[in-house]
Amino acid sequence: MRVLVDCQGADNSPAAEVEGALLALKAIPELRVVLLGDEEKIREVISRHKIRTPRLEIVHAPDEVTGNDKPTDAIRLKKDSSLIRGIRMLREDDTVDALVSNGASGVLVAAATLRIGRIEGVRRPAFCPMVPNMLGTPVGVCDSGANVDVTPEMLQQFAIMGTHYMQVFRGIENPRVGLLNIGKEEEKGDDLRREAYKLLEKTPGINFCGNMEAREFLSGEYDLVVADGFSGNVLCKCAEGTALEVLKRLKRDINSKKKYQMGGLLMKKMFEEEKEFMNYLNYGGCALLGCEKVIIKGHGSSDRIATKVSIEQACKMLKGGMNERIRESIARIEGEEQ
Amino acid sequence: MRVLVDCQGADNSPAAEVEGALLALKAIPELRVVLLGDEEKIREVISRHKIRTPRLEIVHAPDEVTGNDKPTDAIRLKKDSSLIRGIRMLREDDTVDALVSNGASGVLVAAATLRIGRIEGVRRPAFCPMVPNMLGTPVGVCDSGANVDVTPEMLQQFAIMGTHYMQVFRGIENPRVGLLNIGKEEEKGDDLRREAYKLLEKTPGINFCGNMEAREFLSGEYDLVVADGFSGNVLCKCAEGTALEVLKRLKRDINSKKKYQMGGLLMKKMFEEEKEFMNYLNYGGCALLGCEKVIIKGHGSSDRIATKVSIEQACKMLKGGMNERIRESIARIEGEEQ
Repeated sequence: MRVLVDCQGADNSPAAEVEGALLALKAIPELRVVLLGDEEKIREVISRHKIRTPRLEIVHAPDEVTGNDKPTDAIRLKKDSSLIRGIRMLREDDTVDALVSNGASGVLVAAATLRIGRIEGVRRPAFCPMVPNMLGTPVGVCDSGANVDVTPEMLQQFAIMGTHYMQVFRGIENPRVGLLNIGKEEEKGDDLRREAYKLLEKTPGINFCGNMEAREFLSGEYDLVVADGFSGNVLCKCAEGTALEVLKRLKRDINSKKKYQMGGLLMKKMFEEEKEFMNYLNYGGCALLGCEKVIIKGHGSSDRIATKVSIEQACKMLKGGMNERIRESIARIEGEEQ
Repeated sequence: MRVLVDCQGADNSPAAEVEGALLALKAIPELRVVLLGDEEKIREVISRHKIRTPRLEIVHAPDEVTGNDKPTDAIRLKKDSSLIRGIRMLREDDTVDALVSNGASGVLVAAATLRIGRIEGVRRPAFCPMVPNMLGTPVGVCDSGANVDVTPEMLQQFAIMGTHYMQVFRGIENPRVGLLNIGKEEEKGDDLRREAYKLLEKTPGINFCGNMEAREFLSGEYDLVVADGFSGNVLCKCAEGTALEVLKRLKRDINSKKKYQMGGLLMKKMFEEEKEFMNYLNYGGCALLGCEKVIIKGHGSSDRIATKVSIEQACKMLKGGMNERIRESIARIEGEEQ
């Protein structure tokens, strides 16, 4: 397994990515890592650690893509950036299996879509982040922002790709799939949702459990939510924001009275654990499903632990043969449709 | 002010609606109420209270619309239901000003759209519920489910109607308006959002503050969120569900250890207040903005207090001349466009 790690463009670059890679190399004996970025800066971080391994390479790609770059411009003009260079290596080099980047997601999606082949039959790559539900099990949301305009057939494919992902990455045998909608009944929502409902009902290999209202997202009744990229994005970010705002509010409450402060002291550890529990960085990066190579977009604020988790995640997807599984399932439904 | 109250079709009907009306009559001297429903059952509830007032009428409309009724069927076949009868009275009777219903929202929207005139120039009526943010101020979301397919011009109108609503109902002078989108920058999202952004920027009378990501929904930075009905619905329900799930999870945590239980005892009142704070029933019903008459859709699980709040809300909108204000603002922008 040879994994590219983009060491630029994020809040804690390059330290988070370099140190995350070192941790992953230590944990996974069969892993090889290629660090992409400013070689001097990367070597500087490595030199702080007493590590020598032939499983670590560096490719000098000093240019940097930022969130302000227009995707098409970045692809055209920043060929020497670590991100675009990584995408090119994924395409051209058969010995490279995966890319982990904490950088600009818009550029990543555009470059991956334009430059890397999709798995045969896949209509569009889709993002699938993990959001912790309140029972402690992460829920996947596919798509969560790669595609704002989708068709029923794309939603069907998101369900298939997401199902394999939950099986391979999270070990859930028969993930319960919900279609994000504004009501439970089959006929609710717009034409897109009604058409998708019918397709999902007859899709082999997925455990379709009907429409899911946003209220039930974290209830533990679903393992995978299928959505267009716009509303999927709203769902993930709203859940994340609301959970953090509630904790912040409770903290304010606690500080408002002596009595509550005393209670808060007794529960200090509990609240710390909750904050950690709700920290999305602990749940791995966001996989871009459907490309011929494995791609993980880590959070921009990833630290070395989060980056390590993202690299491990890529390895899990490779070991589990996720893309082959997706290819087979998609071939099956696309064959039936013809 | 003569307000119709639909006494059927909800979890606690007719007691919640009848008793809510009695409470509202007591609180607002200039209010007159018409209760619609099964006369015998309504009288039975009234008889439990020692109240006699000429400001209370009953219209016998015994048939009931449920959430399972298809809107078009209900309108055609259930003419003697309290809801459809109420809509007809709104249309035909000039002395009737508003309708409050805790019943089926799909039927209510369809019947209101088809049978009651829209305010001149208004393209579509839109729902605008209130969601408490974490600073204690409710945020309006317009639309939250009445329209799944919208145009940029509709989003612009939602911003105008919602602004007047926040001014009249919540007394916020210059409500900060955010456009729900999947990124902060102007060019983010789909064509719909990009077009709407441009329109909102040049709309007079609104305080447009740019794109809002779902993560910021409850941060206190916005008073009104403009959205298509699908993603607006996802936003409201996800925030509601997540807040309740977090509180549920903390409760489980507290019960897991003696030490936390002791802390929980000290904070009992605080948690009770938080639960009450997050109870959406306290924030009034969901206004359907843009119809010629005032319409409030109360939550299906409304109790008498929630129903009273919904009736008071209708009175506030009438007293504030909300519909006249909307008419003027819409005429202004539609005039400019021609």
